[in-house]
Amino acid sequence: MTNDNSLQVSVLGLGAMGSALATALLKAGHPTTVWNRTPGRADDLVALGATPAGTTADAVRASPLVIACLLDHASVHDVLDPLTDDLAGRTLINVTTTSPTQSRELAAWAARAGVTYLDGGIMAVPHMIGLPGSSILYSGSADAFHQHKPLLDLWGTSTYYGDDAGLASLYDLALLAGMYVMFAGFIHGAAMVAPAGITARQFAASAAPWLSAMTGGLAGFAEVIDGGDYTVAGQQSLEFSHLGDLQAASAEQGISTEVVDMVQRLIQRQIDAGHGTEGFARIFESLRHPA
Amino acid sequence: MTNDNSLQVSVLGLGAMGSALATALLKAGHPTTVWNRTPGRADDLVALGATPAGTTADAVRASPLVIACLLDHASVHDVLDPLTDDLAGRTLINVTTTSPTQSRELAAWAARAGVTYLDGGIMAVPHMIGLPGSSILYSGSADAFHQHKPLLDLWGTSTYYGDDAGLASLYDLALLAGMYVMFAGFIHGAAMVAPAGITARQFAASAAPWLSAMTGGLAGFAEVIDGGDYTVAGQQSLEFSHLGDLQAASAEQGISTEVVDMVQRLIQRQIDAGHGTEGFARIFESLRHPA
Repeated sequence: MTNDNSLQVSVLGLGAMGSALATALLKAGHPTTVWNRTPGRADDLVALGATPAGTTADAVRASPLVIACLLDHASVHDVLDPLTDDLAGRTLINVTTTSPTQSRELAAWAARAGVTYLDGGIMAVPHMIGLPGSSILYSGSADAFHQHKPLLDLWGTSTYYGDDAGLASLYDLALLAGMYVMFAGFIHGAAMVAPAGITARQFAASAAPWLSAMTGGLAGFAEVIDGGDYTVAGQQSLEFSHLGDLQAASAEQGISTEVVDMVQRLIQRQIDAGHGTEGFARIFESLRHPA
Repeated sequence: MTNDNSLQVSVLGLGAMGSALATALLKAGHPTTVWNRTPGRADDLVALGATPAGTTADAVRASPLVIACLLDHASVHDVLDPLTDDLAGRTLINVTTTSPTQSRELAAWAARAGVTYLDGGIMAVPHMIGLPGSSILYSGSADAFHQHKPLLDLWGTSTYYGDDAGLASLYDLALLAGMYVMFAGFIHGAAMVAPAGITARQFAASAAPWLSAMTGGLAGFAEVIDGGDYTVAGQQSLEFSHLGDLQAASAEQGISTEVVDMVQRLIQRQIDAGHGTEGFARIFESLRHPA
């Protein structure tokens, strides 16, 4: 399906991300109306052909499809609560960063107002929008997603997770959690080798390809987790994965052990419960059932 | 430099890893003598042309180059302490898993005995030996490393870190720390999305390429860490990296927050010390200076 670039679109919120989204729409030929709380932000977009709206009401009325890229959940209500009558019958795609609970609240609010609601979580920084590495997660109205997918694909790879509007945000946060934790693990490793005179750059030169290669093991953990049988053969056991050597070496280097202590606690709870010979993926159970 | 495959080599310890190392030597044509504490393990290697040694003394005397791939640090002493006279003048490459401190102790022990010592840390599982993904880290005798590099390259990519024999082990443990922590982060993400009906396999299908792509950011953190100036422009600040949303969403899903709490503590200590506007890489300082 090719994109119907005659569709009118309005973009509310012209921070770095909102501007990047509007730019991609303009470059694809969409008649695009833009609005920002503080004026002046629209100038570059107007030079690209955007129509500046003086009020949010003007912006909403200009298009059947409204994109909100605002500061936070409260901002979405501040900007749109006065306009529910104008929004009725239109489609709102909200890519403002919100929690799963907040996304669900907005979906319920939109449903009461007769607004078709799609929630988006952007896994990219603004300069990546429209480039191959950009990925955007969606949940909420399946109709809105499928009808507008060619347009959404202008911004990056578009993936739909289901009609629970909180799913995209949940998925987004789960991926971000993985990222921040990986960053902390890398920085722990850099701190371990630093006292031996190894620079962080030297360490990154081997750690980046190493960690990238080790993501190849995640599907195997996932298969065990989904299967629910942590005793299947061929896995590295929890006992073998014991991080005592890592904790001792970290302490000998004079650095904090708290990063590796966290992993060891998850392992130890399963060993203590009698599962030491089962696979490492069993730490999923330590997380699923908080201590 | 091509490998001189006329060199006699002895391999002590024929567990899965020792057997894989010996197999690679035999396939390259090296006359290889093998020994294992419990007999029978050598049979497959003998079929490939290996010479079985009845005693460790026979094994050591057979070759100028001795490879030790034993259970642990104590095993190396158990096997080799009675043979220091035989080992004198030979080269010992010890790939037994040991801590940095244990590797340094073995290097000092070898020096007293007149043995040239090289310590190795294997970043591969046995079936990967000799394949492109296999990486082995070395430290200790530079002469031994450079003289035998073509032979070492039969096992995987060989990297030398310096004459401190503990460096390979330290580097190995730092990379393993990064890996285990990344695994914990992934499993945390899988636990977050599980209550919403998303399987771990579905999550892995997007998390693996996502985390792999995010390793592209590690060099940037490293540059900031090495530069020592966490205020340089273009970084994501500690305040922006605040994981409150991740902690709240994890708690709402009913799972443990301890994985993300760990990262947040590292961030919070720097914010509390007045560095909230500085870059995320500053959590290096939280680790370098334990609370």
